Amino acid sequence: MNNHSTSPESIELFEYLCSRVKEIGVHSIHGDFNLLALDYVERCGLKWVGNCNELNAGYAADGYARVNGMSVLMTVMGVGELSALNAVAGSFAEYVPVIHIVSQPSRQAQKRRSCVHHSFGEGEFESFQQISRSVSCMTVSIDCPQNAPSLIDEAIQQCWIESRPVTIFLPSDMIRIPIAKDRLTVGPRFGRMVPCEDMGEQKKVIDEIANEIRRSNTVIILVGGYGTIHGARWELRNLLREVKIPFLAAASGLGVVDTSLPNYEGLYVGTCSDKRVLELMQSTDLIISIGNIFSDLSNPGFEGNVDQSRLIQVERRRVIVKGDHFPKKYIKNILQALTSHLIDLQLPMTQYSSARTMSPEEGKLISNSKAAVERRAKFSARGCFGSSTKHIRTLWHMGLSIYRHTFGKKEPITHDWFWKALGQWLQEGDIILAETGTASFGIWNTAPPREGILIAQYLWSSIGYTMGACQGAALAAEETSSPRRRTILFIGDGSFQCGCQELSTIIRQGLKPIIFIICNNGYTVERLIHGEKQAYNDIQGWDHRLLPAVFGAKRGSYQTHRVETTEHLRDLFGSKGFTDCSVLQLVELVVGTHDAPSNLVKLAQSLQPRSGASLVLQDRC
Amino acid sequence: MNNHSTSPESIELFEYLCSRVKEIGVHSIHGDFNLLALDYVERCGLKWVGNCNELNAGYAADGYARVNGMSVLMTVMGVGELSALNAVAGSFAEYVPVIHIVSQPSRQAQKRRSCVHHSFGEGEFESFQQISRSVSCMTVSIDCPQNAPSLIDEAIQQCWIESRPVTIFLPSDMIRIPIAKDRLTVGPRFGRMVPCEDMGEQKKVIDEIANEIRRSNTVIILVGGYGTIHGARWELRNLLREVKIPFLAAASGLGVVDTSLPNYEGLYVGTCSDKRVLELMQSTDLIISIGNIFSDLSNPGFEGNVDQSRLIQVERRRVIVKGDHFPKKYIKNILQALTSHLIDLQLPMTQYSSARTMSPEEGKLISNSKAAVERRAKFSARGCFGSSTKHIRTLWHMGLSIYRHTFGKKEPITHDWFWKALGQWLQEGDIILAETGTASFGIWNTAPPREGILIAQYLWSSIGYTMGACQGAALAAEETSSPRRRTILFIGDGSFQCGCQELSTIIRQGLKPIIFIICNNGYTVERLIHGEKQAYNDIQGWDHRLLPAVFGAKRGSYQTHRVETTEHLRDLFGSKGFTDCSVLQLVELVVGTHDAPSNLVKLAQSLQPRSGASLVLQDRC
Repeated sequence: MNNHSTSPESIELFEYLCSRVKEIGVHSIHGDFNLLALDYVERCGLKWVGNCNELNAGYAADGYARVNGMSVLMTVMGVGELSALNAVAGSFAEYVPVIHIVSQPSRQAQKRRSCVHHSFGEGEFESFQQISRSVSCMTVSIDCPQNAPSLIDEAIQQCWIESRPVTIFLPSDMIRIPIAKDRLTVGPRFGRMVPCEDMGEQKKVIDEIANEIRRSNTVIILVGGYGTIHGARWELRNLLREVKIPFLAAASGLGVVDTSLPNYEGLYVGTCSDKRVLELMQSTDLIISIGNIFSDLSNPGFEGNVDQSRLIQVERRRVIVKGDHFPKKYIKNILQALTSHLIDLQLPMTQYSSARTMSPEEGKLISNSKAAVERRAKFSARGCFGSSTKHIRTLWHMGLSIYRHTFGKKEPITHDWFWKALGQWLQEGDIILAETGTASFGIWNTAPPREGILIAQYLWSSIGYTMGACQGAALAAEETSSPRRRTILFIGDGSFQCGCQELSTIIRQGLKPIIFIICNNGYTVERLIHGEKQAYNDIQGWDHRLLPAVFGAKRGSYQTHRVETTEHLRDLFGSKGFTDCSVLQLVELVVGTHDAPSNLVKLAQSLQPRSGASLVLQDRC
Repeated sequence: MNNHSTSPESIELFEYLCSRVKEIGVHSIHGDFNLLALDYVERCGLKWVGNCNELNAGYAADGYARVNGMSVLMTVMGVGELSALNAVAGSFAEYVPVIHIVSQPSRQAQKRRSCVHHSFGEGEFESFQQISRSVSCMTVSIDCPQNAPSLIDEAIQQCWIESRPVTIFLPSDMIRIPIAKDRLTVGPRFGRMVPCEDMGEQKKVIDEIANEIRRSNTVIILVGGYGTIHGARWELRNLLREVKIPFLAAASGLGVVDTSLPNYEGLYVGTCSDKRVLELMQSTDLIISIGNIFSDLSNPGFEGNVDQSRLIQVERRRVIVKGDHFPKKYIKNILQALTSHLIDLQLPMTQYSSARTMSPEEGKLISNSKAAVERRAKFSARGCFGSSTKHIRTLWHMGLSIYRHTFGKKEPITHDWFWKALGQWLQEGDIILAETGTASFGIWNTAPPREGILIAQYLWSSIGYTMGACQGAALAAEETSSPRRRTILFIGDGSFQCGCQELSTIIRQGLKPIIFIICNNGYTVERLIHGEKQAYNDIQGWDHRLLPAVFGAKRGSYQTHRVETTEHLRDLFGSKGFTDCSVLQLVELVVGTHDAPSNLVKLAQSLQPRSGASLVLQDRC
């Protein structure tokens, strides 16, 4: 295999790259790539996930990073790189650290301006690099053995620090080139680095923030997920827990914050917020926004406009205090220093009402009241048969289920019911993916599970994203989670069609997510905005339950369900076999064509076309 | 519906755009777009094809244009635009005229730098426009009612003249704006325009070419498909027919030229050519290359290098005579003028041997020799039963088929057999799509049908392209062909997985292509280049025959077949029901995992990694 002789002090370049990938905690690589490189991947103890297409591979890498911390995507110049572009752009918008390696023609072919396939035939390759630059926080071209190790290291570190994609352009003839390996062994400990910063400048910013807090009667913290998840989550949670300032979660912040803290005041989503939360945001003297972007979807009704005179913004790499910019301020350092400073100051904290957004009994699937528990015990199989055999109990439950289905009250499922009911079934640690549309807005009504992760795109909002992201997230969960975490996807039938083939990769990798396909014959958000009954908002109806078999899943390795009533869903949620996720599960969740979560209806009204202010929305859900 | 009042002299902008689209002969629009605009599409008598995702929509628009002449793709800024980018880039590389309309936020939102979804959240939109510019021959931003009509017209005309994509950026609030409609009614006849050129300059070029021909003992014309198909095909064919200089087809030229002409000498594909053809190319004094790009895949073994001292290149918008460039020379005009000039000159033409690349009997599926015909007649049902009833004849054929399947010789299918046999079954006018891989190289061995169209990407070579392109091509054929043309796709199982969902759109649109899925468990080109038995060249096995039912096809509206032997394929090809394409048909064509067309084996050897000269290849086939 080795064509280039390496000395004890050298290592083949791609092996160096794989070593660094392992050091940062990435175990699997997604994509489609140069064949020589693929030989190294498994040899170096990494797993290669060959996705069905590059766009899904990019989405999968994004989902993987959101659970694992970082990820690696590999594509080929031109056709692969551009196919994945929308996914990498989404990771860029949403602050997800993905290392994108792009295989290029050999250095000689580039120098000769060879007319190669996957190009425009003019021997020019710079245009592709330019495109990738616009969706990367840094790009490097690895075309010289001497500086290759430092460039690779710098790119990976920058990816982590900025929490955004980097692109590494790699000519195919560099893959086996011997390079120095001393950085692997004697260099600084490589990993999730923290940039060095000017302590004086940092103190200045911390003092500014503290002064603003002192000057304000009421203060609230608003937490988003942009740049707060990777490498700053612990510091953020520590701040919220120790400093005790009341805080709200923005949509992107769900899954980042611990909503069980006493100072959690609710979900802020613009005019779709509870009245109380909206009044809090509008009346408070000072808002400290951490990792939040005030877009039209996360701040609906205000079209992104926020009063700067009441606002401090802490972002991944800068702080803005009432319009004054403080660049090159790393969020991890800022949050750490701010926490210490505020604890030392012992500021009196403003007390808001402790009423929460959702009452404990609201939308309960299975009541835990004493009467309900007693009632269940009385009519349970055990209650009826004493210490009966397992076999009789099974028959009992089957009979009860058949009775309910045949004679019981059959309520169709509505969004308003479902998203609240869901919160009763979610478990600690669940990884939830919510596709843009009814899912990503419906989930606002769901009580989030402790230590859960919510994966959704509230800024980039590219439908079809979650199918690939589900594959990546589920894989990362398998590799890193102990105890095991469930991966649960909620996706509209229209969005599912965008990237359906990644179900095949899920099956191939032996992953076991639960996938809820919200079946309502088309594109709900669009129907609400415009063209409620128009054919362009319909989709071709699919029989999703046949797909696992099509995609090669063996009998017994999956289950499918078609759920049309609340009763059926209650049974499913109450079933251990379903809840324990021991196999892949596909659920067709049937809801009315024109039904939608109430907050989405409200949001859509704010997006309806009007003279001079209409907005665009990509696709449907 | 009308919020903006239009006068008798004005028309709503999107209606103007739709009128122009109809004038250029486009009947259907592919993509995913702003909802307001969709209302106009059908109102203006156009069909809206809502594809499953934007990348497939882009491929479909490309396939549609290759049959219809032009096409329209509509996407949304950011997420839609970037998802389709690889498709538009492919159209740019391969000279396919696609009009790409990108919906943007309103002008006010852009001016205010609003933080909107589908963006990076910084109120900046120029980066997306910059990306689209790199894959368009022209871009226009429609942000002013006064110049909107002229900009729209200019973009459409440039798309036709250059035979490459243009991008029209359209703020959402411009859709209903009233604009002047006088250009629609009193302006120049709009259509597939020809640029005005300097006749003196044109004569100079024609004289140069004619002089070079005079000075050469031997001359050959090499015809490719880049820029020759749209708006120059008639002139090209006229040249080849009238001037009678011997000519070869490059891979991209198959389907452009009439191979039944006496001066057709064969297919030139670098070192994969027949020995005779290679010798022709290497020994001839002068090569006139028309619409050809010497890439590594169309000119294998020479890595794009061609001796300029023997070469004249006629491209879409320029001519190069032995290295001297003559820009702004429109191919249609050049071919027309050259034909007249050469006819007038009455040059003596070089005579080459008339031996063809494929002998008539080679690889015949059904022999047409007199003996074979007589033999068939003797054993036909009619022969056996005289003037028997149709019923008895049917029983006879069924019995014969069962006998053959049970006791007859069962040969597995090999590529070398299949692609030659295919040529016997193809019909005049067939539209053939060949996915990059075994199909696009195997088809070199197939006798092309008269007046057929071959759709393949020999330069961009993006796998997954043909699934979407098949939908577009089949739709264009339905709309424009009389008599009806068949659409036939050959695609590898790995490539099929990339864009499989467009089968759903094919079903939804009621299209009836025949789709051959070459089932060989993975990526053949890659296996040949490197990693023959490596797992990364395998794919997840699918049961493709279940897919039509999954995608909502009604019983009776489709057929599926799994073909593993030459016998079975002969029966299928001999069946009227199959051949007539009265329903959608899906054929799993099973070939050996390590089998490949001989020319592909040779090509792959030229692409194998070697020190300092390895090439990249995207994906598999």
